Amino acid sequence: MRLARIAHPGGVAFASVEGDGDDARVREIAEHPFGEPNFTGKQWPLADVRLLAPILPTKVIAVGRNYAKHAAEFGNEVPESPMIFLKPSTSVIGPNAAIKLPPSSSRVDFEGELAVVIGQPVKNVPAARAASVVLGYTVANDVSARDQQKSDGQWGRAKGYDTFCPLGPWIETSLDPADLRLTSEVDGELKQDGRTSDLVHKIPELIEFVSGVMTLLPGDVILTGTPEGVGPIADGQQVSITVEGIGTLTNPVTG
Amino acid sequence: MRLARIAHPGGVAFASVEGDGDDARVREIAEHPFGEPNFTGKQWPLADVRLLAPILPTKVIAVGRNYAKHAAEFGNEVPESPMIFLKPSTSVIGPNAAIKLPPSSSRVDFEGELAVVIGQPVKNVPAARAASVVLGYTVANDVSARDQQKSDGQWGRAKGYDTFCPLGPWIETSLDPADLRLTSEVDGELKQDGRTSDLVHKIPELIEFVSGVMTLLPGDVILTGTPEGVGPIADGQQVSITVEGIGTLTNPVTG
Repeated sequence: MRLARIAHPGGVAFASVEGDGDDARVREIAEHPFGEPNFTGKQWPLADVRLLAPILPTKVIAVGRNYAKHAAEFGNEVPESPMIFLKPSTSVIGPNAAIKLPPSSSRVDFEGELAVVIGQPVKNVPAARAASVVLGYTVANDVSARDQQKSDGQWGRAKGYDTFCPLGPWIETSLDPADLRLTSEVDGELKQDGRTSDLVHKIPELIEFVSGVMTLLPGDVILTGTPEGVGPIADGQQVSITVEGIGTLTNPVTG
Repeated sequence: MRLARIAHPGGVAFASVEGDGDDARVREIAEHPFGEPNFTGKQWPLADVRLLAPILPTKVIAVGRNYAKHAAEFGNEVPESPMIFLKPSTSVIGPNAAIKLPPSSSRVDFEGELAVVIGQPVKNVPAARAASVVLGYTVANDVSARDQQKSDGQWGRAKGYDTFCPLGPWIETSLDPADLRLTSEVDGELKQDGRTSDLVHKIPELIEFVSGVMTLLPGDVILTGTPEGVGPIADGQQVSITVEGIGTLTNPVTG
């Protein structure tokens, strides 16, 4: 199922997105999307609603340097253990919402990533059982103020600005994430072209590692890292990230 | 007002703590504590209720190396801009709840800190207006797996374990935080003895800086940094942090 959050004429709701292209429709879900969804019976053409961030996580855990070639492009080694940091929930935006460049930074980069959405409250999940605690997978952009990331040392500021965590377009709940193509384009020009099979620390290991540190709550999001090819974005540009089997997350950039 | 969250015989509530010693009582507040509190009329002796973390923040923003002598004790410079990182909301515990040492770390330290609790949704607050967005001040322990903090580079793991953010015992809403004594004791032995007047980046500046990056929501917490004298804690010990004008936050440590 493609699980979305939508603004429709009567309010905001979770919804299932069904069909493709001009025929795509959204079917409203009552209340929350965890467990078996209850449909309200209301539905609209996808074109008549606005897609929001598919989930509002209590926390976003991101993994640094988790593709060897991306670590190398900034002269870094791949860490032995996953290197985790947090992005604030206030940084989350949905598809087509604007990434706002902060005036304090002179270099803001896109970073296309596969994101894991957790489906239940969990702690200490063994890798072998990790898939069972996943609600689904979505696309993320780990937007980063690269100059501040370098000068600050800790990444709380550089990765934490409002609008620096686009998520969407929806959560695909039936997907094997082990070997998916991930591409990023800026104004239609291909910048990143990786495969999730190149993840240094794989998704089951990441879930075991992160849940061994902190309790994960339903809707919490793990960003799995970005492949090589990251680069700057500027006012007026548009960045699109596509993960095979999920869809494309597109956001304009404003100064 | 000393604003607490309590577990009482009938449930959980915010409350005002009034009086001291054996005469201290808690008066239940209806709903949330932002704005003028409404009292329900119920009250109990403080000894008959359990104090919980005084607030459940959507995010905890912490500031690294914000006392010069603490930065120096690990051979670090004081950063020109505040160095911020996030602790997950799942790391928050209240007074007297146990700090749990993770088996993966061989060195876990206490760090006594003054914490600022935000009272309203804000962005881009000028330092001159910062005091007006503060709900109050509480005491925090920025518990840190020191070995992992050094080896990981990013501090998401070392500072993010469940139970690694004790807060309490309550929020003092009427307090000038500019020059308060802060002490930490382990099993009654004095370890830290600092003053908030030694903060490198002062509280109004921190609020301006952090709110310039991310929207702050009611209940969000800023940990302002720790003075020199941090050190390890071990199974069976008890750590107490006192900030003048607020009170003492005590937590046992378990393996």
